[in-house]
Amino acid sequence: MAALTELERAIESIVTVFVTFAFGQEGAAVRGCSIHFRPSGTIPTNEKIAILDWNNDEELAFGEYWRLIRELARAMRRDKAAK
Amino acid sequence: MAALTELERAIESIVTVFVTFAFGQEGAAVRGCSIHFRPSGTIPTNEKIAILDWNNDEELAFGEYWRLIRELARAMRRDKAAK
Repeated sequence: MAALTELERAIESIVTVFVTFAFGQEGAAVRGCSIHFRPSGTIPTNEKIAILDWNNDEELAFGEYWRLIRELARAMRRDKAAK
Repeated sequence: MAALTELERAIESIVTVFVTFAFGQEGAAVRGCSIHFRPSGTIPTNEKIAILDWNNDEELAFGEYWRLIRELARAMRRDKAAK
């Protein structure tokens, strides 16, 4: 397999952060690929994370995580475009 | 300013690729932050890029670019979750 481009490495880093949290949790293999806040989840619920939980199911699915990444990227793009 | 986290560096890489193309073009400062296909743009139109041009304005805006990134990230996440 060819070496990853800078862009592919960057995307992989973002995905790896999510998957590491999602699969780092006890019972994750059963529940599938999302990050859980419930007492059984390793991530304590706090307001910042709860804000990302759009459907209030006490789980951070990849789509919800990606919304955060998109907003961070938009802010960075605006900064760079303003320079 | 504190050093960027791995996640922030990854997002910045993705944004930088877009901004480099968008602002690397002649007359970019006037037209704002999108990548142009028209003859005046440095990127020749090809089917692969034209597919990303959702509104067919012969420009690749950041939102259209980001859709590609999201799809690549989803594919990577599915791969990682399947392992």
